[in-house]
Amino acid sequence: MAKKEISQAVILRLPRYYRYLEDLMEQGVERISSNELSKRMHLTASQIRQDLNNFGGFGQQGYGYNIKNLHDEIAKILNIDVEHDMIIVGAGHLGQALANYTNFRKRGFLIKAVFDQDPRVIGTTVGNAPVLPMEKMDDFVKDHGIKMAAICIPKAPAVEVVESLIADGVVGIWNFAHVDLAVPENIVIENVHLSESLMRLSYRVGEVYRNQDEEKNE
Amino acid sequence: MAKKEISQAVILRLPRYYRYLEDLMEQGVERISSNELSKRMHLTASQIRQDLNNFGGFGQQGYGYNIKNLHDEIAKILNIDVEHDMIIVGAGHLGQALANYTNFRKRGFLIKAVFDQDPRVIGTTVGNAPVLPMEKMDDFVKDHGIKMAAICIPKAPAVEVVESLIADGVVGIWNFAHVDLAVPENIVIENVHLSESLMRLSYRVGEVYRNQDEEKNE
Repeated sequence: MAKKEISQAVILRLPRYYRYLEDLMEQGVERISSNELSKRMHLTASQIRQDLNNFGGFGQQGYGYNIKNLHDEIAKILNIDVEHDMIIVGAGHLGQALANYTNFRKRGFLIKAVFDQDPRVIGTTVGNAPVLPMEKMDDFVKDHGIKMAAICIPKAPAVEVVESLIADGVVGIWNFAHVDLAVPENIVIENVHLSESLMRLSYRVGEVYRNQDEEKNE
Repeated sequence: MAKKEISQAVILRLPRYYRYLEDLMEQGVERISSNELSKRMHLTASQIRQDLNNFGGFGQQGYGYNIKNLHDEIAKILNIDVEHDMIIVGAGHLGQALANYTNFRKRGFLIKAVFDQDPRVIGTTVGNAPVLPMEKMDDFVKDHGIKMAAICIPKAPAVEVVESLIADGVVGIWNFAHVDLAVPENIVIENVHLSESLMRLSYRVGEVYRNQDEEKNE
């Protein structure tokens, strides 16, 4: 397999390809040319051919790509051809939003439980998952062999919770807490810092106005 | 002003600097050296000095950076030294999570209203914001001069809603819908595609296991 040689830049683009291929499959489309895909994805056709060449010859001259093959191959690379049991820590609004996201389930990310310390939510169900007390988290993770966890609690408790999870065997942390977590080398963290994303938007909005002012002054 | 010359790479790092400086201010710290900041942020001290040199001589040899000055200067660049009135489209779990996020309010992002079509939520309040019917969105945006909107609805209606918002004067779109929106040049979009983020995590978790297998086989 040539998997190891696929560049990080291509990997970062794969989830987006996957999303487009999924949409096409839902629409009943079976094949697509790189030109047609390039129009939809706002990439150049040559970029697409280069990216998809990484997975062998799925594109046949004149026939285009077999969407299902490509979709399945990308799923394998992204490690979403198998199911992943997950937990969510924090049953606040964000934790509930994630637990209710049907798209995750569709892609094989199964939320097995949500943990919280608030007695008002413990014992309820969010999405399909039970809300359990924090004290049960460690045993649950070990007993169910959970490898992935979403962190939806404030930054202060997040540090300690993540340390426990790693000790329990979790390998992938999806971190929504506003803190950069220091983790060992064989543990991966994907940060979603919403405030930072909003600040980037705000910066770019400011840039639009600055450009408009400059055009006026020219 | 040297603002225009700051590279995009530095800009992308600014929200993270801002977050650290904010934490330091909350802890009552007034000055910090580049060495100390580098330890906290896991960046090299020389990277930090290079980045922060973009905003003029805030670091004095032997004295370190004046945290408040630096914080305020970065706020100006990020366009968060002023308040931004926003709306959220979609009062589902994610829309409610954003509306309830006190961090946004603290940084001057004020959610003025949330729009939804579900009669069960219309008339309620989320965070501090009223939930109003979709039909009122256009007038509200125009009357209040709203420039920023968060899109928390499914992809199918998102395309049309964003077109309306742009016609109403919105400049910045914070897009949580799973669709790439085509917008005019003077409109900015910040995408938060949570499924793609989760797939990247899943890929990297798979990579950890592949590396472990290879080590075993060596």
